[in-house]
Amino acid sequence: MTIRAAVLPAPDREIEIRDYPEPDLAPGGVLLRTSFSEVCGTDVHLQDGRLAGVPYPIIPGHVSVGVIEKMRGRVVDEHGQPFQEGDLVGFMDVVGSCGKCWYCQVARASTRCPERKVYGITLPADGLFGGWAEKILLRPDVQLLRFPSGLKAEDYIGGGCGLNTAFHAVERAEIRLGDIVLVQGAGPVGLSVSAFAALAGALEVWMIGAPRKRLEFGRRMGVDRDWDLLATTPEQRREEILALTHGRGPDVVIEATGNPQAVTEGLDLVRDQGRTIIVGHYTDAGEIPINPHTQINKKHVEIRGCWGSDFSHFYRSIQVLAKNKDRFPWRDMADRTYRLDQAQEALQAVRRQEVVKALIRPNE
Amino acid sequence: MTIRAAVLPAPDREIEIRDYPEPDLAPGGVLLRTSFSEVCGTDVHLQDGRLAGVPYPIIPGHVSVGVIEKMRGRVVDEHGQPFQEGDLVGFMDVVGSCGKCWYCQVARASTRCPERKVYGITLPADGLFGGWAEKILLRPDVQLLRFPSGLKAEDYIGGGCGLNTAFHAVERAEIRLGDIVLVQGAGPVGLSVSAFAALAGALEVWMIGAPRKRLEFGRRMGVDRDWDLLATTPEQRREEILALTHGRGPDVVIEATGNPQAVTEGLDLVRDQGRTIIVGHYTDAGEIPINPHTQINKKHVEIRGCWGSDFSHFYRSIQVLAKNKDRFPWRDMADRTYRLDQAQEALQAVRRQEVVKALIRPNE
Amino acid sequence: MTIRAAVLPAPDREIEIRDYPEPDLAPGGVLLRTSFSEVCGTDVHLQDGRLAGVPYPIIPGHVSVGVIEKMRGRVVDEHGQPFQEGDLVGFMDVVGSCGKCWYCQVARASTRCPERKVYGITLPADGLFGGWAEKILLRPDVQLLRFPSGLKAEDYIGGGCGLNTAFHAVERAEIRLGDIVLVQGAGPVGLSVSAFAALAGALEVWMIGAPRKRLEFGRRMGVDRDWDLLATTPEQRREEILALTHGRGPDVVIEATGNPQAVTEGLDLVRDQGRTIIVGHYTDAGEIPINPHTQINKKHVEIRGCWGSDFSHFYRSIQVLAKNKDRFPWRDMADRTYRLDQAQEALQAVRRQEVVKALIRPNE
Amino acid sequence: MTIRAAVLPAPDREIEIRDYPEPDLAPGGVLLRTSFSEVCGTDVHLQDGRLAGVPYPIIPGHVSVGVIEKMRGRVVDEHGQPFQEGDLVGFMDVVGSCGKCWYCQVARASTRCPERKVYGITLPADGLFGGWAEKILLRPDVQLLRFPSGLKAEDYIGGGCGLNTAFHAVERAEIRLGDIVLVQGAGPVGLSVSAFAALAGALEVWMIGAPRKRLEFGRRMGVDRDWDLLATTPEQRREEILALTHGRGPDVVIEATGNPQAVTEGLDLVRDQGRTIIVGHYTDAGEIPINPHTQINKKHVEIRGCWGSDFSHFYRSIQVLAKNKDRFPWRDMADRTYRLDQAQEALQAVRRQEVVKALIRPNE
Repeated sequence: MTIRAAVLPAPDREIEIRDYPEPDLAPGGVLLRTSFSEVCGTDVHLQDGRLAGVPYPIIPGHVSVGVIEKMRGRVVDEHGQPFQEGDLVGFMDVVGSCGKCWYCQVARASTRCPERKVYGITLPADGLFGGWAEKILLRPDVQLLRFPSGLKAEDYIGGGCGLNTAFHAVERAEIRLGDIVLVQGAGPVGLSVSAFAALAGALEVWMIGAPRKRLEFGRRMGVDRDWDLLATTPEQRREEILALTHGRGPDVVIEATGNPQAVTEGLDLVRDQGRTIIVGHYTDAGEIPINPHTQINKKHVEIRGCWGSDFSHFYRSIQVLAKNKDRFPWRDMADRTYRLDQAQEALQAVRRQEVVKALIRPNE
Repeated sequence: MTIRAAVLPAPDREIEIRDYPEPDLAPGGVLLRTSFSEVCGTDVHLQDGRLAGVPYPIIPGHVSVGVIEKMRGRVVDEHGQPFQEGDLVGFMDVVGSCGKCWYCQVARASTRCPERKVYGITLPADGLFGGWAEKILLRPDVQLLRFPSGLKAEDYIGGGCGLNTAFHAVERAEIRLGDIVLVQGAGPVGLSVSAFAALAGALEVWMIGAPRKRLEFGRRMGVDRDWDLLATTPEQRREEILALTHGRGPDVVIEATGNPQAVTEGLDLVRDQGRTIIVGHYTDAGEIPINPHTQINKKHVEIRGCWGSDFSHFYRSIQVLAKNKDRFPWRDMADRTYRLDQAQEALQAVRRQEVVKALIRPNE
Repeated sequence: MTIRAAVLPAPDREIEIRDYPEPDLAPGGVLLRTSFSEVCGTDVHLQDGRLAGVPYPIIPGHVSVGVIEKMRGRVVDEHGQPFQEGDLVGFMDVVGSCGKCWYCQVARASTRCPERKVYGITLPADGLFGGWAEKILLRPDVQLLRFPSGLKAEDYIGGGCGLNTAFHAVERAEIRLGDIVLVQGAGPVGLSVSAFAALAGALEVWMIGAPRKRLEFGRRMGVDRDWDLLATTPEQRREEILALTHGRGPDVVIEATGNPQAVTEGLDLVRDQGRTIIVGHYTDAGEIPINPHTQINKKHVEIRGCWGSDFSHFYRSIQVLAKNKDRFPWRDMADRTYRLDQAQEALQAVRRQEVVKALIRPNE
Repeated sequence: MTIRAAVLPAPDREIEIRDYPEPDLAPGGVLLRTSFSEVCGTDVHLQDGRLAGVPYPIIPGHVSVGVIEKMRGRVVDEHGQPFQEGDLVGFMDVVGSCGKCWYCQVARASTRCPERKVYGITLPADGLFGGWAEKILLRPDVQLLRFPSGLKAEDYIGGGCGLNTAFHAVERAEIRLGDIVLVQGAGPVGLSVSAFAALAGALEVWMIGAPRKRLEFGRRMGVDRDWDLLATTPEQRREEILALTHGRGPDVVIEATGNPQAVTEGLDLVRDQGRTIIVGHYTDAGEIPINPHTQINKKHVEIRGCWGSDFSHFYRSIQVLAKNKDRFPWRDMADRTYRLDQAQEALQAVRRQEVVKALIRPNE
């Protein structure tokens, strides 16, 4: 029995389909039959060779969902309940945090642990450590999460890797019940941020983004008001937003764009003594001028970077998603599904922004 | 009986000595016989006309200390204890926060109240609302503070207006017992920040500043290690500071320089998931490029502006000063005292940075 | 022109109707034509003489809503916008916080200011300082709040004084998105706590209370699951709640009962490292034994008392109410409306718990 | 070669000396030559059989310090620096937290992990898992800590297990620079709490405790003022403490007594909107009546239990100790040292409170 996988052999190469032998399981290891895996912007960066420390060839797909096909020994969930073959599960793509270093222990900042590895990004193809494959090998240190009853694979994978990131950003924003929250960016992270912000107590959620179609979808994800980035100028937006807030600006701004311009626009817009979260800059998009007097000191503002996520965000985002899946249509964020042999095509569609989110369904 | 005062008639003019009639007191008003008033960088900005909303002519001197000469009616301190004539008191230079607006009440950000006025800055000379005068008229809404027993006028005025600012910055830094704190800037604010940071739980306080003489004084104000800004390059400092922190950087950075370059250097130096306080940019010194990926998002860092202060900072800083005045020599931060008719000279000395801090002693 | 009011002459006396002359307005004063005033448990305590510092005779009714009939001079809202005659407004029943004492300024705990007075409770009848009257005199230091467009008097008064209290309790609970929140008590405060907790990020809101009819109403106010206090034992509740939380208990418990037994039950139920808010004990209902080892130290739990509220809670609760009034039926919490001359009857109905909330409509 | 150890065979038995063969080391394991181990109140409880889950026979001594005699493979510290034979190290007595369960991951409350084991308490004698032995076997999951240069074994062991506990309590107290902190209890934890509170920003540290001799030692550990529990009544203490705080009480109270009476006295004393930490109730000493109205709700107070500690507290407390060992004489808290064969005698001395702290020096 072999396992088919879509492999990225090296930077600037196309995806290839390869066969791997079924792996042996270590005690505590799990073999997952993949229901869906995600194609996201990071996968484009991987193909372009823009990330450091990637052990090509790799099987892309860091966030996936599947059914347990095989386990070696007893594997338990976070409540100590054993998993069964046939269980529908997601898993934390980040593994290997050492739990012993200064960042893990003294700073309690496990996302800064130098030992962290990520499925589909910094683990090699021959381990079957990526989601664009019929099966995924979960090492014993992978944290699985059993889906709450009623939550389907499709409900979850629509949110995908943006769920954890958005949840972490909203947690870090410490929204106070009644705050006005402005979200910058209408991509998967921005859209999940909107829904979570609405659920976390925002009085209103506003969005600046593009294109129009995504903003329309945003209205279904908790956005009360939006500005089309392509149809308005920063001056127009500023004027309107100040007029709506008695000249003050929103209480909280969450940047989820990756565009440095958004950072300075956010600082101009956020009210004095407000809070700005920077979560969209996972890759280097260059510098932007900031004025420390007018944009930071005098405003008494707080700016918080937000990097990575941990199992706490994963666990909670899934509970919240399961409860609110009928209110906010995460499911519909994925607009197209591809077979394994169409992986290159899926990657192209994401690269060209033809889709909000593409999925791979390897066993179809 | 007239009252002599040093008056700044208008921007770009020299200080003049003028006489004012002794004012009538409103109920709750106080006439203070000035022991000392301070000359600080803000006074230079006032002479240069760089601040908005200044009702020239003004009597400069926003932070002062004196003895109650006269009161109308009962005036009580924050504990409800009545003041007596002859009491040595300081007072909060900020008055007039309305207590009713959105910033005062909903955001609990009284330093952003649009009604705030500041003695010696945004109140007119003919009200006797500044410290460079034999006597100061304290409106009924001024908050006086009785000095703890044993605290002399000289002990306090050495710290002066930097005390409140520094106290607020250290409070906002939320130093955790055992943190390494890097202070940028060796002026009055930076020096008080050092002492307060040491008292608030810093394991070590480090300073980047100049000139050498101030750094030497810093060693008496709690600094354990310093870098001379004029004798080192940013690269040298970075290399040494990373070497001292296992490659991570200090836990907390507090910028007290007014130089935009310091902001970006601070962001480069602070450890991942650390905190940077921007307190030195009370005036506009221009922009600086920031990289949102490498300096904010990926570092998971927090940047906090710090503007103004309130009575809480004043009250607490005085208690802490009174307790620790023998351990940290705030008294010696003032290196020269001037008579009222030397006010222009004092201002020149501050402008040329010939002194750390100049004092006016109007009744000498 | 005289103004009719329902007056409580002294403890243990019945309500009487009296006439007052229309008062003169001080500059900044407002005369309000009362739309509704509330009858709440505090009014029963007032009649029983259980509160200290009450200057009988008083006009009860601390929380009211009305229309501005007359103003003297310009009166502005928190945004600086002037009020007009005919505006529908609520107002903060707490007035007179001095803004100068140690609690107001150093501790930033204005609800502990010794100068605070409360309309309908600690202000005398002859000032027209209570809501059970055709008109209410608002002193210049009263903070009025203009209702957001679309919010009717009925929408607000259903929540009434419980809104502020509940909002403050939920804010103090610092609910994290995804928390399970257990509310103890199905009275007006508990019901508003449920709705605010649901809006502030609770995954699930559970309620222990009685009678059944109020629990049913709770289901419309955000409660996902409930236990009837009269139909279950503490052991049953504990068993079921632990079974629902993998043996751990809810993340947050908010006590809104006034029954000391609830405090110890809450401490037994809340999960280790969870948080319990005590907001139901506004009057002294006696002691309860607590075990510091098993209920506090070993659980690493946090217990927070919650007293009073400020304009921030009032402002935000009204914004949140206006946005969510169709989702949560605060309006329906008031189940009976009385004329002014029926005030004694209304008080009796509240005393006998025949109603959740009674309203007085003085101009009917 | 055999290793001598002092063994507690079972509850209510005397300590016996036994010989064990030198153990094999697992990869990452360390054999430590014991410099000192501690005798603390927990050891008395162990002899009395008052703790659950103890796998008798055990080698007591949960906190120890020693020199690395042997290692298997590369063992690194929290900075990734390898240990060497001959290094002086302490180690975290808590091991085995799973890092995967709900408490470890979702609640981030590792001290509530059900898998935790503690050296000298819940690990068996034949593993050499306790400090009252010539050598201690450190499992690969033990977190070692290299002592900062200049810190001697004696400097550290004087503080011993109370260091972590006290550090955690002070961290949880969130002392604000300028707070007045009242410590209840003059035992090892209370004394370390005093020093850490002084270092963390307390304006004044006050202590209620006994006997007089310990209070005198407290003066060397940062205490500014004290009350002898045996020579004063609660009424006297309350009267004096209120008089010293303008009738309000201290900002923070930290209970470190184990006496339930102290909890209610602390709640009576702490100021409104203050904070009380309960850290002294590691064992069950019974219940105490609390009044939810007067002691919690109306005071708007916060009560925080504090259980266990993690490597963060250990790491930071050692850094802070090393920096301040000349200012605060932790070294002198240990007043008597015993040989291994005197362990029973040492335990008796602690039981009879003849010593503040007894040490075992197994290789003497």
